[in-house]
Amino acid sequence: MQKIRIAILGASGYTGADLIRLALAHPAIEIAALAAERKAGQSAQAVWPHFQAAQLPDMATVDTIDWPTIDAVFGCLPHGASQQIIARIFDRPAPPKVIDLSADFRLRDPETYAAWYGAPHAALTLQAEAVYGLTEHFAEDIAQARLVACPGCYPTAALLALLPLVQAIDPQRIVINALSGVTGAGRSLKETNLFTEVAEAVHPYGIGSHRHMPEMEQALGDAAGAVLRVSFTPHLIPMNRGELVTTSVDLANGATVADLRALLATRYADAPFVHLLPEGVAPATRMVRGSNHCVLNVFPDRIPGRALVIAAIDNLVKGSSGQAIQNFNLMFGLPEAMGLEQAPLFP
Amino acid sequence: MQKIRIAILGASGYTGADLIRLALAHPAIEIAALAAERKAGQSAQAVWPHFQAAQLPDMATVDTIDWPTIDAVFGCLPHGASQQIIARIFDRPAPPKVIDLSADFRLRDPETYAAWYGAPHAALTLQAEAVYGLTEHFAEDIAQARLVACPGCYPTAALLALLPLVQAIDPQRIVINALSGVTGAGRSLKETNLFTEVAEAVHPYGIGSHRHMPEMEQALGDAAGAVLRVSFTPHLIPMNRGELVTTSVDLANGATVADLRALLATRYADAPFVHLLPEGVAPATRMVRGSNHCVLNVFPDRIPGRALVIAAIDNLVKGSSGQAIQNFNLMFGLPEAMGLEQAPLFP
Amino acid sequence: MQKIRIAILGASGYTGADLIRLALAHPAIEIAALAAERKAGQSAQAVWPHFQAAQLPDMATVDTIDWPTIDAVFGCLPHGASQQIIARIFDRPAPPKVIDLSADFRLRDPETYAAWYGAPHAALTLQAEAVYGLTEHFAEDIAQARLVACPGCYPTAALLALLPLVQAIDPQRIVINALSGVTGAGRSLKETNLFTEVAEAVHPYGIGSHRHMPEMEQALGDAAGAVLRVSFTPHLIPMNRGELVTTSVDLANGATVADLRALLATRYADAPFVHLLPEGVAPATRMVRGSNHCVLNVFPDRIPGRALVIAAIDNLVKGSSGQAIQNFNLMFGLPEAMGLEQAPLFP
Amino acid sequence: MQKIRIAILGASGYTGADLIRLALAHPAIEIAALAAERKAGQSAQAVWPHFQAAQLPDMATVDTIDWPTIDAVFGCLPHGASQQIIARIFDRPAPPKVIDLSADFRLRDPETYAAWYGAPHAALTLQAEAVYGLTEHFAEDIAQARLVACPGCYPTAALLALLPLVQAIDPQRIVINALSGVTGAGRSLKETNLFTEVAEAVHPYGIGSHRHMPEMEQALGDAAGAVLRVSFTPHLIPMNRGELVTTSVDLANGATVADLRALLATRYADAPFVHLLPEGVAPATRMVRGSNHCVLNVFPDRIPGRALVIAAIDNLVKGSSGQAIQNFNLMFGLPEAMGLEQAPLFP
Repeated sequence: MQKIRIAILGASGYTGADLIRLALAHPAIEIAALAAERKAGQSAQAVWPHFQAAQLPDMATVDTIDWPTIDAVFGCLPHGASQQIIARIFDRPAPPKVIDLSADFRLRDPETYAAWYGAPHAALTLQAEAVYGLTEHFAEDIAQARLVACPGCYPTAALLALLPLVQAIDPQRIVINALSGVTGAGRSLKETNLFTEVAEAVHPYGIGSHRHMPEMEQALGDAAGAVLRVSFTPHLIPMNRGELVTTSVDLANGATVADLRALLATRYADAPFVHLLPEGVAPATRMVRGSNHCVLNVFPDRIPGRALVIAAIDNLVKGSSGQAIQNFNLMFGLPEAMGLEQAPLFP
Repeated sequence: MQKIRIAILGASGYTGADLIRLALAHPAIEIAALAAERKAGQSAQAVWPHFQAAQLPDMATVDTIDWPTIDAVFGCLPHGASQQIIARIFDRPAPPKVIDLSADFRLRDPETYAAWYGAPHAALTLQAEAVYGLTEHFAEDIAQARLVACPGCYPTAALLALLPLVQAIDPQRIVINALSGVTGAGRSLKETNLFTEVAEAVHPYGIGSHRHMPEMEQALGDAAGAVLRVSFTPHLIPMNRGELVTTSVDLANGATVADLRALLATRYADAPFVHLLPEGVAPATRMVRGSNHCVLNVFPDRIPGRALVIAAIDNLVKGSSGQAIQNFNLMFGLPEAMGLEQAPLFP
Repeated sequence: MQKIRIAILGASGYTGADLIRLALAHPAIEIAALAAERKAGQSAQAVWPHFQAAQLPDMATVDTIDWPTIDAVFGCLPHGASQQIIARIFDRPAPPKVIDLSADFRLRDPETYAAWYGAPHAALTLQAEAVYGLTEHFAEDIAQARLVACPGCYPTAALLALLPLVQAIDPQRIVINALSGVTGAGRSLKETNLFTEVAEAVHPYGIGSHRHMPEMEQALGDAAGAVLRVSFTPHLIPMNRGELVTTSVDLANGATVADLRALLATRYADAPFVHLLPEGVAPATRMVRGSNHCVLNVFPDRIPGRALVIAAIDNLVKGSSGQAIQNFNLMFGLPEAMGLEQAPLFP
Repeated sequence: MQKIRIAILGASGYTGADLIRLALAHPAIEIAALAAERKAGQSAQAVWPHFQAAQLPDMATVDTIDWPTIDAVFGCLPHGASQQIIARIFDRPAPPKVIDLSADFRLRDPETYAAWYGAPHAALTLQAEAVYGLTEHFAEDIAQARLVACPGCYPTAALLALLPLVQAIDPQRIVINALSGVTGAGRSLKETNLFTEVAEAVHPYGIGSHRHMPEMEQALGDAAGAVLRVSFTPHLIPMNRGELVTTSVDLANGATVADLRALLATRYADAPFVHLLPEGVAPATRMVRGSNHCVLNVFPDRIPGRALVIAAIDNLVKGSSGQAIQNFNLMFGLPEAMGLEQAPLFP
C-alpha cells in the first residue's frame, strides 16, 4: 500500500507527541515531516526521548517542509498561529488535507470567535468551510472535508455524553463538572503546572470563562435548535492523562432515565470507540488511558426528575490526537478505527 | 495547668492517627489511652512509625482503659460498633464527654438512620441527645453537650458553603460535585484503594446512594424549613488529603451573587478557620492541607440566575479530627482554636 | 495465517492484564482461554473494565480449559502453585509450550530454590529443563525450549545492564540500587500497597533478603565463572509502572568507562528493544513506559576506577509480560518484535 | 518574652514558605520582614495562598527592610546573590545574626568553591568565618556563630548517617544513592519540573557532577582525616517532600554491623530529631514528612564485609528550613527543639 505522507505541525507539544505515537502504529501513515519552530534542527529523540527506537525525521520549520510531497497535515499549533499557517497551506496549489487540533476553526460564528479569543479571525473563509470533527456525530461531513477542526477535550467528552439526549432533557439547565489530568494544560512553563503545585492537590479553574464553553454551546444549541448556555466547571487533578465529565441534567418531555440509556445505546451501537457501560457501572478514566475509547453511563439523580450522565476519555487521545487520526481515517476513506486499536494501559 | 486526659478509640485508623498528631500539639491535652482492638499490646510506634519521637501509651482494648481517669473520649470506630461502645461509656458513673467521629449520631431521625445504615439504632436516647458538631453553626449547643457527633467530611465542606445561603437560593435544586483524596476511604484493604488502582485515575462513586446525602439533607432541610433532597456526586482522586466541593445553585428571592458573598462574609467574619477568599480567587486544597482551615468562594455561573459556591478542606482535619478537637475545645471551655494553629503544609 | 491459540493462567493479576493487552495487539495470537480460579465465570470486562472494547473469553478455571486446542500457555501464577500446574500440563499428551512468568523455574539449583522459597521444588525435572528467558542473552536456547522461565523484573534490568560487562568489572563488588513502581507488588491486598501508604513517600524493602538476589547471582556467576553475591536494595516509589536500576561497579582488567560503553554498544547493536543512550543522557522510566524497551547508559563515577551503569524498563512489559511475548515469538519462529512495536506512552 | 525579630530573604521560594510555616509556630519568633525582589509589594497571601489565616508582612525588597530592628536573618537566596547580600548585611553596624540556607558558605576552600560554582567567592572573610550548620555535629560552634551555613539537603541526610561511622568504614569507598521529592528542585520554571514530566516516572540526575558532592567530601574528609571522594547519585521521584539516602559501605578496622549500630545509638542518644529505628525496620520518608526528624538504620549487606546505612528526612525541613530554625535556636540560646515539635503528617 502506498502510504499517506503526513506532516505534524507543533510536534514538540504533548499533542504532537501523542500524534507521533499513534501515527507510528498506523499502517497507512508515513511521518514525512515534524515541524517545531524553536526546536528545528534537533532530532526527534532529543525532543522526545521516549521515541528512542523509532525512525523519525528531524524537527524542521514549517517553511522548510517539502509541501508538494505532503498528503495530510495535523496542526497542533497554538490558536491564532494555527489559522495563519493553515491559510497559507491552503493557498498552495493542490494543498494537503488538514486536520487542525487547535481552537481556531471550531467556532462557526466570527463574532463569538473574536469575543472569546480576543482578536478577529484571520481566515474567515476557511472558518466557514471547516467541519467540526466530533467523529461519531459528523462523520459524513468529515469524510468530505478538506479541513476538519477537532473538538476540544472537554467538549469531546461532554458532547458524546449529551448530544444524543438533547430532546429528552432541558438544554437550558445543563451543569457540567469536569476533571482533567495535567497534560490538558500542555507543556508550557507555568508555575501552576509544576509538579509541586499540582501533586496532592485539586482546584477548579477557568470558572465562568473557559473557552470550551462556547464550543459546547454551539453544538448543543444546534442540536436543541436554541441559543443556550452551559454551566461548566473544570478542575485540575494530579494525574497525567484522563478526563471525566459529570453532568447533571433535568429530564424533559416525559423522558425517563431509562429513555436516556436507550438513546445512548442506540446512538453508539455501532461506534467502535464509544461504550455505554453496563447499568450501574461508573465510568473511570483508568478504563480508557492511552486509548481512543470513551466510556459513559447514565444514572438516576437523587433529586427526582434529574439524571447524571458521566463520561470518561483520555484527553490526549479521544480528546485530541486519537480523534484527529479517527477523522483522518474518514477523510482518506480508511476504516474508522485503523491505527487506533490499542487497548488501554492499566495500571 | 491540669491537662485533660483523653482516650482515642479506633487509634489505628487514619482519623485516629491525625487525632494523635493534633493532640500531641495541644497544650491542654494528655493522651491517656489509645484503643485499637486488633493491635492491642503493640506500641504506638509499631502501628504508626511516624510517631517515632513521641511519648505515647501502647495500644489497648477499650475494656482495659482505666475509665475513671478519662475526661474525654474521641470515638473513631466504625458505625454500629460506635453506638454500642459509646452507650456503655455513658452507662458508667461520671462518664467522660464524648466526641464521636463515626456516623452513628449524626442523623436525628431513627428511621432515616435505619434506612441508610441497614439496622435500627441501638442507642436511641443518646441519638436524640447528640449535638451535630459543625462547629461554626452549632457552637452554643456543642459547648453544652456531653455527646457531639462530628459531621462527615463532605457535609462539613458542603454545609459550610451552603448553610448561610439557604434563604437566598432554591434549596430543592442544589447540585454538589465533590472530589476527595484517598484517606477519605480509610485504611481498609480494598482493591479500589490500592495505589495501582487509584493513581493516574479518577472515578465517581456512591452515585445516588452515598450516606452523606441524608446528613446534608437534614441540615439543609432544617435551615430551609423544608424536606429536600440534594444531588451529590463524590469522586475519588489520586491524592492523600483534601476535599473540594463545587456546588451549583439557583439564586432565589431576588438574591444576587454579591448577596451570597455578603452572606458568607458576614457569617464567617469571626470564624478562625473559615475564610472567604478575595473575589475571583478559586479555592484549592493546597491552601488547607494538614490544617483545620476551610477556604471558600462564590462565583457567578455562566447560566444566568445561577451561582457556584466552592469550598476546600483537609478531609482528615476540618473534615474529621481537627473539627473534633475544635468541638472538644468548646466542650471544655477552651479557646476554640487551641492546638489547631498549625499553618497548612505546602507543597 | 493460522493463529496460535494461547491460554493465560492467572489472568486476574496485573501481569495477566498486560499479557492480554499485548496479546490483543499481536497479529499471530488468539486468546483462547483466561484462567483465574477465584474469578471463574466472570466476564473479562468484569475483572478488567479497561478491556470494554475487546472480544475476550470469560474467566475460567485451569481444569476447564480445552487443553488439546491450546498451543501455548503463559503462566502468571504465584510461585509454588505454578510448578504444580505446569507439571500437570506437561503430563498431558502433546503439551503446549509454556512461558512461565513466576519464579518457579528461574533458579537452576534445587537447594538454592528451597532455601529462598521455603520448600523443595515439586517439579525437579522441569526445573532442570527450563531455559532462563532473558531474551537478548539466551535467544538460541529459548528458541528450542518448550518451557521458558521469564526473569524477574529487577534481574531483567540489572542483567541487561551488567551481563555484557562481567569481564571488565569486579563481579564480587557489584552494588545495585533499584527503584520500582507499585505494580511490581502485584494486586494483592496489603496495607503497604494502599495509595495512602505509598503516595508522597518512598522506602526501601527486602533489604538483604530479596528473592531476586539469587537469580541475579546465578546469571552473573555463570558469566563470571565464579560464585558471587550482589548487593541489591530495591525501593518502592509512588508510580504505577517503571523500574530503574543504578549499579555501581569497580572497573577491572584494565577496562575504562569507554570500554564498558563499547561492550554494551556491541552487545546490543542488533537488539530491537535494548538501547544504549547517547553519551551523557540519563535513562528515565518515562522513556519506556508501556513498552518493551530498555534504555541504558554508562557513566564515570566520581570515585576513580569506578563506573555507574544505569538501566530503565517498564516492569510489567520488558520486566514481565512483554519479555514473555518476546520469548513466545522466538519459541514459535516468529519475528522477535512481533506485537511489541508500540511506542512508549508519554506523558 | 521579647520576641526575636527575623527577616526571611527569598521568601517566595519553597524554602522561604516552609520557614514562614515553622516561624509562625515558633513562640520566640516574630516575622518582621519578608523579602522577595520580584514580588515586592504583594501580600504574603498573594504569593502563598495557604497562609490565608496568618498575619504576615507584605513582600518587600532587601533594601527596604528596616535593618536596625532585625535580630536574625534567614537567607533563602540563590547562590552567588546570597554572598553579596549577606556581606552587605555584615557591613552594617550591629548586624543581625545570619542563618544562610544557600550553598555560598558551605565550602571552606575558596578554590573548591570556585571550581564547583564557576566564579570566585565574593566574601572570602565571611566564608572563612561561617560555621557549617549540621546541628547534631557542630552544635558548640553554631551556638557561638554569627553566620551559619546550613547544609544541603542530601549532605544533611548522608552525613547524619555516615559521620559517626567514619572510623569503622572505608571512607574512600562510600556509595550513596539518594532519592528526592521535587521540592528539592525549588519553584523554578523548568520543563523537567512540570507535573507531566515528573509524575509516573523516575530518573537520576547530576550524575558525577552534583554540587552536594564536595560538601559531603569536605565533612567526611575532615572526620576521616583524609582527602576523599564519594560516589553519589541522586534520583528525582514523583513526590513533593522527602529524601532518602541508601549508602553502601565497606566495614573497616574490624568493625561489625552491630558496631555501626552502636556508634549511631551512642551518637544520637540525646538528639531530639535523629532516631535510630529498631533493628530491621526500614527508614521511610512517610515517617518524617513535614517534620524536622531524621530516621535511620543499619543493615548487613548481602556481600560479606559490607553494610547498608539508610536515612530519611523531609528535605524542606531537616534538609533546609527546619534545620535552619534548629540552628537559630542554638545561636540565640533557646532550647534546640523550640518551634519544631510538630509531629510528621501522615498520610
